[in-house]
Amino acid sequence: MSTTPATKGLEGVVAATSSICFIDGDKGILAYRGIDIHELAERSSFEEVCYLLWFGKLPNAKELSDFQAQLGAERKLHPDIIKLLKSFPTSAPPMEVLRTAVSALSMYDPDAAKVDHESNIRKSIRLTSQIAMIVADFDRIRKGKDIVEADKSLSTSANFLLMLNGEKPSDTADKALDVALILHADHELNASTFAARVIAATLSDMHSCITGAIGALKGPLHGGANEEVMKMLFAIDKAGEDPVEHVKKMIAEKKKISGFGHRVYHTEDPRATHLRRMSRDLGTKDGKPKWYEMSEKIEKFIKAEKKLNANVDFYSASTYTTLGIDIDLFTPIFAISRMSGWAAHVIEQHNDNRLIRPRADYVGPKHPAKYVPMDQRG
Amino acid sequence: MSTTPATKGLEGVVAATSSICFIDGDKGILAYRGIDIHELAERSSFEEVCYLLWFGKLPNAKELSDFQAQLGAERKLHPDIIKLLKSFPTSAPPMEVLRTAVSALSMYDPDAAKVDHESNIRKSIRLTSQIAMIVADFDRIRKGKDIVEADKSLSTSANFLLMLNGEKPSDTADKALDVALILHADHELNASTFAARVIAATLSDMHSCITGAIGALKGPLHGGANEEVMKMLFAIDKAGEDPVEHVKKMIAEKKKISGFGHRVYHTEDPRATHLRRMSRDLGTKDGKPKWYEMSEKIEKFIKAEKKLNANVDFYSASTYTTLGIDIDLFTPIFAISRMSGWAAHVIEQHNDNRLIRPRADYVGPKHPAKYVPMDQRG
Repeated sequence: MSTTPATKGLEGVVAATSSICFIDGDKGILAYRGIDIHELAERSSFEEVCYLLWFGKLPNAKELSDFQAQLGAERKLHPDIIKLLKSFPTSAPPMEVLRTAVSALSMYDPDAAKVDHESNIRKSIRLTSQIAMIVADFDRIRKGKDIVEADKSLSTSANFLLMLNGEKPSDTADKALDVALILHADHELNASTFAARVIAATLSDMHSCITGAIGALKGPLHGGANEEVMKMLFAIDKAGEDPVEHVKKMIAEKKKISGFGHRVYHTEDPRATHLRRMSRDLGTKDGKPKWYEMSEKIEKFIKAEKKLNANVDFYSASTYTTLGIDIDLFTPIFAISRMSGWAAHVIEQHNDNRLIRPRADYVGPKHPAKYVPMDQRG
Repeated sequence: MSTTPATKGLEGVVAATSSICFIDGDKGILAYRGIDIHELAERSSFEEVCYLLWFGKLPNAKELSDFQAQLGAERKLHPDIIKLLKSFPTSAPPMEVLRTAVSALSMYDPDAAKVDHESNIRKSIRLTSQIAMIVADFDRIRKGKDIVEADKSLSTSANFLLMLNGEKPSDTADKALDVALILHADHELNASTFAARVIAATLSDMHSCITGAIGALKGPLHGGANEEVMKMLFAIDKAGEDPVEHVKKMIAEKKKISGFGHRVYHTEDPRATHLRRMSRDLGTKDGKPKWYEMSEKIEKFIKAEKKLNANVDFYSASTYTTLGIDIDLFTPIFAISRMSGWAAHVIEQHNDNRLIRPRADYVGPKHPAKYVPMDQRG
C-alpha cells in the first residue's frame, strides 16, 4: 500500500478536480464557474446562479424563464409529505425535520434511484423547490398556523418568505434573502458538499447525497455558526451589556466567538462584504439598526484584538433576524441555498465517478492481538 | 495554499488516524482492535464485537451480559416510528425506508444532539437495536403481516430472524447470520464510514452520521454489490444455464461481474473465507446447495480467467438467499452490522475532532470570467 502521510481533517489535501467553484483564500476570491461572487451578488439572482452551477453557463432570457417556470412547477409536495411534517413533534429541530423529509421524498420521486445527468437535473430542480417548502411548511405547522400555498410565479426567495410569513415580502426583504441565497450557494469542498460527494461516489442517488449533506450542515462547526452568533447578540441585548465588554469577557473565559475566521480565507470572506451591507441596509430601512450596530462593534474589536475577519456567518445572523426569521431556521435557509451547490457537485461526481475511499493510519493494538478467552478477561 | 496533488477517489490517501480497524490488503488481514477477523468469526459474537469496537476491549462475562441486556432493553420503537413505517408506500425500497426512519428517530431520542462519549454510546446501543427492528418491521408491514414482538433475551441475529420470519431461527441460521454480522461490522474508512466521519467532524449528531452512512451504503458500488451477485445467480437459475457459460457471455458483453476484486485487498478477502464456508454449510444442511454450487463454479472460473478473488459480497448473496432473506434486504442487513463500525468511527471522530474539509483542484473557467449581460447571451 502506498499512502501519503495523514493530514488531520484533510487540510490542504486535494480530494477532487472540479469546474464549479474557485476559491483563492489568500486573495479573498470566490467565484462560481469563474464568475466573481461580487458580480453575482450585485447583478444576478438565485435562480440564475442555480442554472449557472448546474449547466455551467449563464442562461439566456428564454432559458432562464423556462428554468424559473420549472422551479415554479415543482412547488408542490406530495400529500404524504405534508402528513409526515404534521406527524413530527412540534418541538423537533427544523434541521432534523428537513433531513427526514428530504429522505422521505425519494419514495415519491419518479427518478429516485437514477444517477444519469438528466434525472439528476430534474431532481435538483425538484429538491430546490421542495426543500424551501418543507422549511416554510413545518414552521407554519409547529406554530399552529395554516400552510400557505406556493406562488409559482415568484422567485425562490419571495415565495419562501410568502410561505413562511403569509404575506408577500417587501422588495428589500426579497432582495436581501435572494442575495443571501446567492452567497451561500456553493463553497467548493466544504464539509457538507464533500459528504454529498462521498455518498454520490458509491453511485447512490441524489436524495441520499442531499440527506447526508443536510446532516453535515447541521453540525455546529458548519451551518450552526450563525445561530451561535445570534445567540450571543441576543444575550448581549438581554443583559443590556456593551458588546465589546461582553466579547472581552467571553475571550477571558476562553469561549469561542462564532462568525470569525475561516479555514480557507486568510483575508476577508468575500461573502461577508455583502452580508454586512445588507445587514446595515435592512436595519436602516427597518428602523431597527440595533443588531447591525452591535455586530459592527464586535467585528472591529475582534479584527483589532485577534486579527480575525468576520466570515459569512457573522452578518447573516443579524440579516436574518432583521428579516424576522427565527434563529433555528438560519441553518435550514443555508440548506435551501446550498442545495444548489450540493446538486452541482453530485452531478459532477456522477458524470465522472470514482469511489471515494481513503485509508486510515492505524494506531491501535498491534495485530495479531490475542483473543483472550472469556474466563481469563479482567 | 499548500496542497498535495489530486488523487482520484482519495486512493491511498490517509484521511484519519484510527485505532479501530487494521487492514493489510497485501496479506489479506482484517482485524478489529488488533484481533484477527478469523478468530472473531470463529469464537466471538456480534454483541461482543460491538463491545470491542466501541469500548476498545473484549468484555468480561459481567460486562457482556450487562451489554446484551442494554441492547435487549432498547428493542423498542416509538409508536410514531411504527406509524411512520406504515405510512410509507409498500413498494418503497427498504434502504430508503431505513434512511428515513433512522433520521426520524433523532426526534424521539433524549440524547439527540449530544456528541459526548457517554451519549454516543447510548445512541449506538439504541440505534443498533432500532435499525434491526426497522428492517424487520417494514418487511412485515409491506407483506401485510403483523409486526412480531421483539424478544429481549435473544441475540441480535436471532431476534432479527424472529421478527422477520415470525419464528425462532434454527441454531445454524442464527449462527450464520451472527457470523455475517461479525464479518461486516467494520472495514476502516470504507465509503459509508468515511461519509459518517465527514458528517461527524462538523460535530453533527450520531443520527445525522448514520443517516448519511446508510445513504452511502445504498450505492451500487458499496452495499449494493451482493444484490447484483444474487440477481446474476437468479438469472442463471431461471434460464437453466451453465454458470460459467453465463459469466463468459457477460464478460464478452463487457458487463461487470459483481462480487470480485476489492480496492484494498490484493489477495483473498478474509471475510470471503467464512462466507464461503457458511454458504456451503447452510446449503448442505438445507438440502438446497444450488446457490453455493453455482457460486463456487463462478468463483473458480473468475479466479482462473481474471485473477480476481471473491470478495465479501460474493458469498453473502448465496448465504442470505439460503437463509430465505429477500434480495432487497441484503443491504439493510449490511447496515444492521455496519452500524457497529459506523458508531465506533463517529465516537472516535467526536472524541478527537477536526473538521474534514479538503480542497478541490479547480479546472473550470478562469476567474474572472465575464458576467455577460442578459441581452448579450447566446
